[in-house]
Amino acid sequence: MTTLQQMGQRAKKAAQILSCASTKEKNQALLTIADYLVREKEAVLSANRQDVALSQQNGVSPAMVDRLRLTEARIDAIADAVREVVALPDPVGVVLGGSTRPNGLSITKISVPMGVVGMIFEARPNVAVDAAVLCLKSSNACILRGGKEAIHSCTALTNVMRQALEMVGLPCDCIQLVEDTSRASAVEMMKLNDYLDLLVPRGGAGLIRSVVENATVPVIETGTGNCHVYVDASAPLEMAVKIVDNAKTSRPSVCNAIENVLVHREIAPIFLPAMKKALDAHHVQLRGCPETIAILGDSVVPACDADYNTEFLDYILAVKVVGSLEEAIDHINAHGTHHSECIVTSNYQNSEKFTALVDAAAVYVNASTRFTDGGEFGLGAEIGISTQKLHARGPMGLSHLTTYKYILRGNGQIR
Amino acid sequence: MTTLQQMGQRAKKAAQILSCASTKEKNQALLTIADYLVREKEAVLSANRQDVALSQQNGVSPAMVDRLRLTEARIDAIADAVREVVALPDPVGVVLGGSTRPNGLSITKISVPMGVVGMIFEARPNVAVDAAVLCLKSSNACILRGGKEAIHSCTALTNVMRQALEMVGLPCDCIQLVEDTSRASAVEMMKLNDYLDLLVPRGGAGLIRSVVENATVPVIETGTGNCHVYVDASAPLEMAVKIVDNAKTSRPSVCNAIENVLVHREIAPIFLPAMKKALDAHHVQLRGCPETIAILGDSVVPACDADYNTEFLDYILAVKVVGSLEEAIDHINAHGTHHSECIVTSNYQNSEKFTALVDAAAVYVNASTRFTDGGEFGLGAEIGISTQKLHARGPMGLSHLTTYKYILRGNGQIR
Repeated sequence: MTTLQQMGQRAKKAAQILSCASTKEKNQALLTIADYLVREKEAVLSANRQDVALSQQNGVSPAMVDRLRLTEARIDAIADAVREVVALPDPVGVVLGGSTRPNGLSITKISVPMGVVGMIFEARPNVAVDAAVLCLKSSNACILRGGKEAIHSCTALTNVMRQALEMVGLPCDCIQLVEDTSRASAVEMMKLNDYLDLLVPRGGAGLIRSVVENATVPVIETGTGNCHVYVDASAPLEMAVKIVDNAKTSRPSVCNAIENVLVHREIAPIFLPAMKKALDAHHVQLRGCPETIAILGDSVVPACDADYNTEFLDYILAVKVVGSLEEAIDHINAHGTHHSECIVTSNYQNSEKFTALVDAAAVYVNASTRFTDGGEFGLGAEIGISTQKLHARGPMGLSHLTTYKYILRGNGQIR
Repeated sequence: MTTLQQMGQRAKKAAQILSCASTKEKNQALLTIADYLVREKEAVLSANRQDVALSQQNGVSPAMVDRLRLTEARIDAIADAVREVVALPDPVGVVLGGSTRPNGLSITKISVPMGVVGMIFEARPNVAVDAAVLCLKSSNACILRGGKEAIHSCTALTNVMRQALEMVGLPCDCIQLVEDTSRASAVEMMKLNDYLDLLVPRGGAGLIRSVVENATVPVIETGTGNCHVYVDASAPLEMAVKIVDNAKTSRPSVCNAIENVLVHREIAPIFLPAMKKALDAHHVQLRGCPETIAILGDSVVPACDADYNTEFLDYILAVKVVGSLEEAIDHINAHGTHHSECIVTSNYQNSEKFTALVDAAAVYVNASTRFTDGGEFGLGAEIGISTQKLHARGPMGLSHLTTYKYILRGNGQIR
């Protein structure tokens, strides 16, 4: 088996060649990848059937098996997504600024690739292609490490992409897959400082925590969303119910879905019953504070402390009655993951205070948190939603896979 | 003694208040800090005399004692530097972009403070003020941790700044100093994830290495510069000598000074003697490869592998003869710290290849590396020179102490 060190060395070399590839060459590679994915559909589906069968034998949950499963239609959709990346502007080589200094020294600030990007993800084979093609478009070599449940699928997909690279004359080591899916290999990858310029983990809270604790390479944390809607005393009742319902139930398994509702004491007696009625239609389990239970009755599960810190990703909602806007803001800043937070209000001052003081990538007034998404923001394809403050915050687009350098051209200037 | 946890809590609270302060209030605080520094000069000098005396007793090197020592003139210069920060544009609240989506949702991308910034630095008391006022101007609370040699000076300076904050009605906990200068407190600070939004280490390679190994908080690495000049076969001889001489000897103790010269085999026999003559005037010790010694004779110390990886910060220069541009680029990418790298050449293609393939914050053609500096780049006051690729690369200005958030204003939009 190839060691991570060897993969790192190969990736560095490939990245240097890729950094000089033109937009046209990269787009040609992307189109070839899309074509080959369609052409090699049967090989990919056969590998995927192995993964699905093994997962079912191992008692993996049906929801997870569904995320793992590929179909002809899903492979076509993956290939279409690759073709869409062709249309995106090349993020590399953009002149971001510059000047000519009084001594005649010319300074150009220009966007350049990161170099080698590592991606650790879980059992979703489509992420292997998504991640690889976004890295390719931004001239980064990538080292992919998917979950063990998807290893046959990821191997098949990676082989197809590498064949396509070879076909167009780019180094196949621009895209590599870690075969060893042990925890040890993930931790080794987090410490591969000599070769990895950036590591992007995509997965649940456990993966992100492990990366924060272990990584010595630069990291962009993504995707943990413990999001809230705060229903202010002055909230329009119907709008508040609609937003909570949408943010919770339109797709509970994604990071921009909410896990908590905070409601002002004044409006709680009329809002909570209306909210419960809407959520009951989706069989949402409510976990409430004592005041919530006093209003809604014993069908509400008493919430424990952990409930306010948990990303359920399920039809479960924690509910808490608060006495003020300030209490809501403090609760969100203490328990949230700095992803997406919403206030529903008719009060201008409260909307301004909430947006100023809530510490999150996306702060909403009177709209569902479900809009936090590269496509919905109009940013194009997205690598993930960053919940950190350094480099990228919120939806990460292609440009966030680049850094910049200063090029200084002179004629003998000394200081 | 206040624990780091307590300091973190206080800083978070102070940061929230500071995040709402107007530019005018922050500038008033800066001016008051400058005035108080001048007014309390004697208290600061007296504390500094303690540090200097202790350092001399402990056999600290004269160069280091000089960096530690404050004088009336130096305090005036520090106060003047604070006043200069008043004139810089406020980096907070800048609208960086936005749009109105087809559904009417309005998106505003706006710059916001990081929150709480930690600074670990060594025995230079002026850094305490520099760092604190740049954090203040960018609405960040800061937690400072200076080297033990400077603890009395840093305590005195911090007290003066805190008095000034109190005077203008801002929380004094916007600026806090860690009293415990043990290694353990530094490591604890590197793991203060609940409170630190960013940690900026300013110091030597040992400090930076410790931060990379230990930090779980977001970090911007600064200031390790193992920089090179590559003298190409076609280099104008006189210009090459002038640039090497300037980059090595104008200020050897700073990170943008060079530590290495690579010279093409074709020009080595005429370039190396001319370079040696210029550097001999500054008593620069040369450490060379066998070919260098064959040309320059036995006064050159044989270079060992470590010499090519060392930031000497002294009148020492490692020299290596190379056979090609490609060998030079590979050597720089393998041994450099991605700070500042220079080619001296008359060949257009070689200049383009060097700037494209050398992986560094600042890549020079025919100019001294000594220009890598916020002021020289026209960026204003500088927090440090970042040698990483994430968030900030090269000279870090005020704007790099901010992040951004998206504010989304709607009227009931759901997805």
